[in-house]
This record gives sequence, C-alpha cells and structure tokens, in this order.
Amino acid sequence: MYHSQLLSSICIPCAVLLQPKKSWSSSNSKAGTTIGDCTKVPRNVNLEKLRSGYLFPEISRRESEYMQKNPDASLIRLGIGDTTQPIPDIITLAMAEQVRGLSTIQGYRGYGAEQGNMALRKAIAGKIYQDMGIKADEIFVSDGAQCDISRLQMLLGANVTVALQDPSFPAYIDSSVIVGQAGEFDDETGKYGNLIYMNCGPENNFFPDLSTTPRTDVIFFCSPNNPTGHAATRQQLKQLVAFAKANGSIIVYDSAYAAYITDESPRSIFEIPGAKEVAIEISSFSKFAGFTGVRLGWTVVPEELVYSNGFPVIKDFNRIVCTCFNGASNIAQAGGLACLSTDGYQALRNVIDYYMENAKILVDAFSSLGLSVYGGKNAPYIWVHFPGLCSWNVFSEILEKTNIVTVPGRGFGPGGEEYIRVSAFGQRQRILEASRRLKKISID
Amino acid sequence: MYHSQLLSSICIPCAVLLQPKKSWSSSNSKAGTTIGDCTKVPRNVNLEKLRSGYLFPEISRRESEYMQKNPDASLIRLGIGDTTQPIPDIITLAMAEQVRGLSTIQGYRGYGAEQGNMALRKAIAGKIYQDMGIKADEIFVSDGAQCDISRLQMLLGANVTVALQDPSFPAYIDSSVIVGQAGEFDDETGKYGNLIYMNCGPENNFFPDLSTTPRTDVIFFCSPNNPTGHAATRQQLKQLVAFAKANGSIIVYDSAYAAYITDESPRSIFEIPGAKEVAIEISSFSKFAGFTGVRLGWTVVPEELVYSNGFPVIKDFNRIVCTCFNGASNIAQAGGLACLSTDGYQALRNVIDYYMENAKILVDAFSSLGLSVYGGKNAPYIWVHFPGLCSWNVFSEILEKTNIVTVPGRGFGPGGEEYIRVSAFGQRQRILEASRRLKKISID
Repeated sequence: MYHSQLLSSICIPCAVLLQPKKSWSSSNSKAGTTIGDCTKVPRNVNLEKLRSGYLFPEISRRESEYMQKNPDASLIRLGIGDTTQPIPDIITLAMAEQVRGLSTIQGYRGYGAEQGNMALRKAIAGKIYQDMGIKADEIFVSDGAQCDISRLQMLLGANVTVALQDPSFPAYIDSSVIVGQAGEFDDETGKYGNLIYMNCGPENNFFPDLSTTPRTDVIFFCSPNNPTGHAATRQQLKQLVAFAKANGSIIVYDSAYAAYITDESPRSIFEIPGAKEVAIEISSFSKFAGFTGVRLGWTVVPEELVYSNGFPVIKDFNRIVCTCFNGASNIAQAGGLACLSTDGYQALRNVIDYYMENAKILVDAFSSLGLSVYGGKNAPYIWVHFPGLCSWNVFSEILEKTNIVTVPGRGFGPGGEEYIRVSAFGQRQRILEASRRLKKISID
Repeated sequence: MYHSQLLSSICIPCAVLLQPKKSWSSSNSKAGTTIGDCTKVPRNVNLEKLRSGYLFPEISRRESEYMQKNPDASLIRLGIGDTTQPIPDIITLAMAEQVRGLSTIQGYRGYGAEQGNMALRKAIAGKIYQDMGIKADEIFVSDGAQCDISRLQMLLGANVTVALQDPSFPAYIDSSVIVGQAGEFDDETGKYGNLIYMNCGPENNFFPDLSTTPRTDVIFFCSPNNPTGHAATRQQLKQLVAFAKANGSIIVYDSAYAAYITDESPRSIFEIPGAKEVAIEISSFSKFAGFTGVRLGWTVVPEELVYSNGFPVIKDFNRIVCTCFNGASNIAQAGGLACLSTDGYQALRNVIDYYMENAKILVDAFSSLGLSVYGGKNAPYIWVHFPGLCSWNVFSEILEKTNIVTVPGRGFGPGGEEYIRVSAFGQRQRILEASRRLKKISID
C-alpha cells in the first residue's frame, strides 16, 4: 500500500485550518510600531468567526515557502485548479478585435448592461441551455462563479439557513460565514454552527442521504463536484429537486465543470423537470474556456423562482447586480461570444479532451499505487483516498517526496480528511512526469 | 429666468423614487401564471427595504420609453456618466498583445493574484501615490470602484454606523441598505433610518458642517464629488481627517474622478497627513482611462488602519478579496499598466482635457440661461440649480424640450432636489449641439 511506504510517520491531528482565534488588542497591534492609533470601528463579527486563510492562497503560500527552502525543486503544480493550455486563436482574435475597436470612434463602447450583453446572454441560453426553456433575460453575465457566489450571498442575507456538500468548494462556507449565516466554528468537529454539512463520499455514491438531511432555505450543490470530481446522476438530481420542492428550499447549483462531463449525467440542474421553481445555477467560462484569468461567468435565475411571499428572486438578483456590480469586461464578453460559436466551441472541446486525457493518466498513476481513486471521468479533478491519514500531512509528504503540489482534502471541509485533490490541468509532459514520479515512489 | 419659461407647470411633489413598498403574496405573484409554487425561503429584509430601481437603470428605462414614443428624436445623452472617446492606441495595443498571448504556450496566463498583478500595483503606487508613502501591498486591484464599494460593505458588515454626503453616488446608500446598516425608509424625509446624511450644497461650499455631524463608524466621502462636481479643498480634507481621528471613524474616500482636478485640490486623501490611520481610498480607471466597459479599479487599504480591537483592516479586506473576488481580468490589467506608462498617461491627459473642454461649453450654456451652475472645473459633471423645482420634472422637461438626457439630482438623495447633473462625457459636436439646443430655449 502506498501510504505504508510513503507515510510511515504518525499522523498528527490536523490543526492547520483550525488555528485558534487570535485575540487582538490595541496594545499588541501597536507592538509593530507602524500601526497607528486604533479607530473606534468594531471589527465585523462575521469576519472574526472565519478561520485561517482562504484555502488557495494558503496553498500558494506553502508552495512559495517550499520553493524558498528548495530553490532547485522542479515543482509540478496540480494543486489550485488553474488552466494551463492556450485559448484557441478564434477566441483571442475576437477579443483582440474588440480591444482594438475601443481605439476607434465606431468601435468604442463604455458601460454595457450590468446583466451582460444581450448577444452573449442569448448565446448562453441557446447553446448551453438548449431545450431547457431558459430565456436570455434569466441569464446574468458575471466576472466568474466565485464572485457570483458572494453576490448570491448578499442577495440571500444573514437570515437563511444553509446546507452544503461536505467536502465542497470553500467559497460557499466562507461566504456564508462572511454574510452572517453561520454560527461559531467548532474546533472538535471542524464545522461552523448553523450550517448543515451534507457528507458526500464513496459510501453514499457522493450524494447525501436526504432522508436524514434537515430542511434548509438554501442548498449549495456543485456538480461535477469540486473537489470530488463526482457528477451527480439524473436520478440523484431528481431526488435533490424533489427534496427542495418538498421543503420549499432554493438550490444554488454550481455547474462550473459541466463541460467536462463525458457520460449521460445532466450538464445543468435545469435538465430536471421542475428545477426552475427551486434552483439558481451558477457557471463559468473559467474551466470551460481557459478564462480563469480573463474572468467571465454567468448565473441563471429563473422567473419561476419566488420567495415565500411570492416575490420573484430574479428581481432582487437584478437589483444586486445593478448595485454591486457593473458588468463583466466587454473584452471578456466578446471572447465568451466567440467561445459559443460553432468553431469556437469545437476548438474548446479539443482543449477539454486534452485535460481529460491528463486525468486518465493521473487516475492510472494513483491507482497503480493501490489507492482508491475517484473523479477524473466527468471532471478534471482526481480525488484520492488515504485511509486513516491526515490530508495536510499527505499534502506535505507528496510535496516533499515528488515535488508535486496537490490540495489537502481537509481544505474542503471535514469530509475531505483522508483525501487529496489532484488537478488534471497541466501540460502533457508535466502530467507524464508527475505520473513517473508517483509510480516511482511505490517501487522505491 | 430659465425655469419661469421652461418649467411653468406646477411642480408636483416628487414621488418617483419614493414608490410605496409593494406587498407581495403568493396569490398576486401567481396571477401572471408563469410563476411557480412559492419556496419557503424568506425574502432578505434588507432588500425589502430598498426603494425603486437603482438610479441609472431607471434613467435608461425612461430614456427607452421616451424613444419609443418619439422614435425620430435625436437624443443627446448627458445622463449616465459614460465615457465616449476612444482609448489611445498605446493602451489597446498593450491589451491586444496580452489577449493574443493567451493563445500561446509562453503567453498563456490563468488565475492571477486576487489582489492584482504586482507590476500594476507597483505602478499605481508609484504613479498615483507618488510621495504619499503608499506601498504596492496596500493596493488591491479590482474590477471597478462600484464593485469595491460592495466588497467594502461586506467587510464592514451590518453593525457599523454610516454617514455619507447628500447628494451622493447612490451605490453607497443602496449597498448600506443591502448589508443591513440602514433602517426603514422614511417617505417624509426621503431618507433611510440610521444613516447620517451630510448635506453638501453651495451654502456650505459643498462640505458638511462637521460641528453638527454626529459620530459614525464609517464616512463615505467622494471627491471630486459625483454628482456635484465639487473637489474638496485641502483645508476641507484636513478637517475631515481631523474629524475622523477625533471620532475614531473610517473614511471611505472615493477618488474615481481625481484625474479631472485642474486646481490645487488634493487628488487623494493620502495627501493629508495622518489619513493612513483613518482612511480607505477607492478609485478607478473608468473615467481616468475610458475603461467603463473594460472594468478596472483599485482600493487602497493602509496597513496603519486598524479596528477598535487593533486588528488591521487590510487583513480582513485581503480575506474578502480572496473569498469574494478572483482578480480583475488580466487583459484589463495589462491595459491599466499601459495607462500608467509615460506615453499612455500623456495620451489619457489629452482625452481628459477634451472632456473638460466639453464641461466648459456646458457650464457656459446653462449659465447663459441665468442658472446657478456648479462643478465642471475639477470634474466632468455640471450641477445645475433650479430653485423651487422638482428635479424629476426638470429632467422630464429638458428631455422633452431639448431631447437631452440628464440625471435628476433627487436620484442622488434628498439633497439633490432642485438640481440636475449633466455629464460632460460626449463627442464635441454633440456637446456643441446640446449647447445650441439649451441656449435656444431661453430665447424661444
């Protein structure tokens, strides 16, 4: 077994993301001498509740720290799920044309609609939500799914109850804490009060046992899931929608990785009949089109979705978008339109296929070590199980022994303990090199 | 007098932005038949408090409505402050190069730092905050000032007290309401409870009487001001900083129009000694570089600024940026860097000078009607007084008689009643045409 060779050290309790709250006072802050007089403004109690740093900057920090100690190490970064392959020419040409047009009287554009350019909204409705009856008016173009999670949290406010998958993308929990939906953090359980953690692992086919899940106002649900890579089946999503209907809940469905689905799993919650009355969908061009740095996404709020008093959610979300956002960059939007053209879409399929071939290579490498490996079929993430081990220790040991950066599953919630997430984004030669380094450990 | 000829109609009480709260129930929402079953999710009480639509979409709506009734009208849009002049080539060439690089292995970039590219942060520190001792680490690159206002509100949370200029840019008040800092709206006064409205008009040289202003945790202050066009003098800003220090308040200073200052008024709050201990500054490339559609801005949070418990504000803002934002578009950031190059900066000065020449033309036109005209000297906005009149009526009448779109001052708060804001953004020939149309009214 892999861990018997690599991780012979005793796994110490994982306290990395469980740093005790620091107690700040004007005296200790002044110790550094550059800090000025204290204001009399109270620190936001919600931010006070948040533990440690946001996961991905924390990974970057540890990576940098490692590189300082080991300047000659040839790192392979399979941690933060960041795209690496060039964007097809047809898409950057469209953006370059838009950019250069901004230097002409005819091509100059100032503010666009806060909700996005109508041509793009129509293209998303037509190409991504074909046959699902989603209207262009229900699509709000954004600068990315993570940003829209926060805008949705501003929409929902502090007085809603929330459930989320455990493990899950940390922005859901952290933004819940920031807007005041969460209670105190419990060091014992590794969970915040008031939030319902829906455990999703191989034992339940990565789908929560809804018969024991309490009702909440909001259910965050990500499929294909980040970090587990599991795409919910049609049957699972039908159950989820029925559960939300029975409880009068709103599902916030994150489909940022939908383009990676290779089987018959739904690409959108709106493939499920009745979902429009209970679901919002957030999505993104980041992983679909390599737009992680370009910044473009969207959110669908169906007109049918209404609060308990009958008020349409779309009206409030429109107000949030108009007040707290000023539209996505018009350059990025021109790129988004090109992504959805016939040729652009096909070119992107090739990039996605490339990443999914990487995923296969990594699944094979970890499997060859005798480990249980999940994901990698409908998502660019591989979720590897290290039974009984602390995921931050596994993260550190893999980094030290192979110079491969992963993400400790614990960073995605207590349900991620014993796992690491491995990203399939990368150049093929680096993925092959990662595979070689991994396979070598087991035979050393 | 202008208004005796143009606005002979009796000014009815202005109820436009004071629509009564609608009472929603599942029965009336279902009347439209497309609305589904109600969820059991309560509508956010803060959004329930918000009145009417956000100002600028409301202006657009009225503009569209007018055009439908008058399809042949040749509208001149001096309403929403939207840039109209092409971006200098040197800047769009830099962006196009960045974009096309994304199609190459060498030039491809994924996620950047959430806080912005260090080269841009350094350039902002060096070029905009020269000699003010602001470090690159204290600068957070954003997708625009309006978006950062909301992120700052998430930072501050519901439990702070807030003061703001009246009139002021509506995003401050609306975002205050959304995060729960405000009380109920009072139809009599046109003000939300719990917010302190600091009246700024010609009677006090557009600077509040601080001797009668109650202490608040946060003071939103915009200079050059939108909508009045007034740039606070050094003396005024010294008073403001002293007031904040005495009260332990945090100033959120909006310098989005600083590039338009033509006299000795400070371009940044950080020109005032001691400001780093009491101020955050938000700013933008939108008006400085015609980036309204490109989306780029920044926020400065000095390390010296600390909460009452000594905790540095910058640490919490960094956490908000990392959790709720994923960085500005790397294309826009490449453009921002070009804006701050020697040649880029000079090219932009020419565009700003062009708009300020427009401002002069408009100031002259309104002045020639015997009206009191403010602004237009340090800002691209002209603030015109119509004593005793309702600003939405003035807006409508100017639209009907001259086909010029302005903004009713009332949209910026009760202190804006009797005023309209006129934007100097526009092509010269249209500004001259607007001037002709305006001057014609007075002699009709």
